Amino acid sequence: MSEKKPLILITNDDGDTAKGINVLTKLMMEIGDVVVMAPDGPRSGQSNALTVNHPIRFKKLEDKPGLIRYSCNGTPTDCVKLALNEVLHRKPDLLVSGINHGSNAAINVIYSGTMGAVLEGCENAIPSIGYSISNFDPDADFSAFEPYILQIARQILKNGLPYGICLNVNAPKAAIKGVKIARQCEGHWTKEFARATDPHGRNYYWLTGYFDNHEPEAQDTDEWALANDYVSVVPTKIDMTAHEYLGELRGVMDAIIR
Amino acid sequence: MSEKKPLILITNDDGDTAKGINVLTKLMMEIGDVVVMAPDGPRSGQSNALTVNHPIRFKKLEDKPGLIRYSCNGTPTDCVKLALNEVLHRKPDLLVSGINHGSNAAINVIYSGTMGAVLEGCENAIPSIGYSISNFDPDADFSAFEPYILQIARQILKNGLPYGICLNVNAPKAAIKGVKIARQCEGHWTKEFARATDPHGRNYYWLTGYFDNHEPEAQDTDEWALANDYVSVVPTKIDMTAHEYLGELRGVMDAIIR
Repeated sequence: MSEKKPLILITNDDGDTAKGINVLTKLMMEIGDVVVMAPDGPRSGQSNALTVNHPIRFKKLEDKPGLIRYSCNGTPTDCVKLALNEVLHRKPDLLVSGINHGSNAAINVIYSGTMGAVLEGCENAIPSIGYSISNFDPDADFSAFEPYILQIARQILKNGLPYGICLNVNAPKAAIKGVKIARQCEGHWTKEFARATDPHGRNYYWLTGYFDNHEPEAQDTDEWALANDYVSVVPTKIDMTAHEYLGELRGVMDAIIR
Repeated sequence: MSEKKPLILITNDDGDTAKGINVLTKLMMEIGDVVVMAPDGPRSGQSNALTVNHPIRFKKLEDKPGLIRYSCNGTPTDCVKLALNEVLHRKPDLLVSGINHGSNAAINVIYSGTMGAVLEGCENAIPSIGYSISNFDPDADFSAFEPYILQIARQILKNGLPYGICLNVNAPKAAIKGVKIARQCEGHWTKEFARATDPHGRNYYWLTGYFDNHEPEAQDTDEWALANDYVSVVPTKIDMTAHEYLGELRGVMDAIIR
C-alpha cells in the first residue's frame, strides 16, 4: 500500500455483507488506503465484548489497489484488536465503524458493537469515529448522510482527536438540516422483553423495548438533534470516572477510608 | 419476601457456580433479601453485550427465606434486564455484581461483564456496585475483602448514589491496607494474541496480552491503589460524553456545522 495516503481501518457490527459497511468503504476509498476487518455476521448489541472462550480466526476476502478486506469470527472489538496486532504493518491514521443500521445515540453507546470498536480504536490512540443512521432497513438510504461522513472523516484526519476521545456520529432517517455537536442524552430502556411460550410450555424472551428519554425538552442532546433532522456528533470518552463526584464520594466513604 | 429489609439484586459474569458470587450472596444476606440472577456459565469480557439473535430463558435454582436464585442463558446485562422486567415485583434497593475473579480496574471497565451489569443497574436508577479482586484463581481467598464489601454496600444503601453514577470496587490479591477513592487509570492492552496453528495449517488466535499503564507514577488511580494494597473505589458514570471537549469540537467542526 502507498505510504502517502492515509491508512483507514474499517469495521462494523452488522457484518461484512451489510450495506452500511460497503457504503462506508466506498466513501473512505476516496480519502485513503482502506483495510476492512469486519465480523462474518451480525454482532449488534455486542458492546465491547471480547471472545475469550474460543479461538478467533480471520480470512482475506478481497485484495485490490487501495482496499484489502478481511472477515473475522469475533466481535467488533476483536476485529479491531486483530487488525492492530496481527494484520496492519502500522497504526492506522483513522478508524471508522459502521455505518450502523440503527441509532447509537443516548445510552445505546454502551450496548453498541459499532461504538465498542470505536472505543477500542480510541484506547489505542487512533482517531476513531462511529457512524450510525436511525434506520434499521437493511437497504437503508445513506445518500443524504454520505457528504457528512466524508467531511467529518476529513476534518478528524486533519485535526486528530485528543487521546481518550472518539466520536459517536448519528444521522436521522431521511432529510438532514445540518450538524449539531451534542451530548449523550439521558434515558433508559423500558418494557424490554417479548415473552413467548415454546411447544413444551416453557417461557422464552426476546429482547425488545423502547427508549424512555429523561430530558425530551433539552436541545443540546443527540436525541434532540436526531428528532430535529440534524446529524449529531457526540465526543465520547473512554474514561468513565465521575470526576465531579470524587470529592463527595470521599465524604460518603469517610468512615471506611479512615 | 419481607417488605422491611432492603431488596438486593446480585449478578456476575463468572456464572452462577463461581465462588465469587456465592461469597457475595452470603454477605448480602446479612443486609437484605437477596435475588440472584446469574449467567449459567462464564461470561467474562461480555461488556454490556445483549442477546439479540436468540431468545433468553431463565430458571429458578433455589427459593428459601431471604434468598431466591435464578440462572439465565444470557449475558450479565441480560440478567439484570430480565430480573428487573420479568422477575422482581419492585425495584431493588441495591444491585451488586461479582465478586469477579480478576481485576476490572482501568480500561477493563469497558470490557467487563461484571461492570456491564452494574452500568445496567445504574441506567435503571438502582444504586449499583461492582466488586472484583485481582486474582483469577477459581478458589480465590476473599476473606480480607469481605468486611470492605459489606461496609461499602451498607454505606451506599444508606446514602444512595446520584443518577448515572455507580461504583467500580477492586481489591488487591492479598493484604488490604485500606480504601482509596480513585479515578480510572489511563492505559491500553498490548501484544494481545497468542497465535496457534491447527492440524490443517490454519492460524487461530487466543486473546491474551498485558496492560500498559500510561501513568504508573500517578497516585490517584485505581491501578496505583491496587498496586499499593488498597481497595480502589472508582465512581463510574454512564454518560460517556467528553463534556470538556464540546467547545473545542465545535471549533474543529465549524466548517461543517455552518
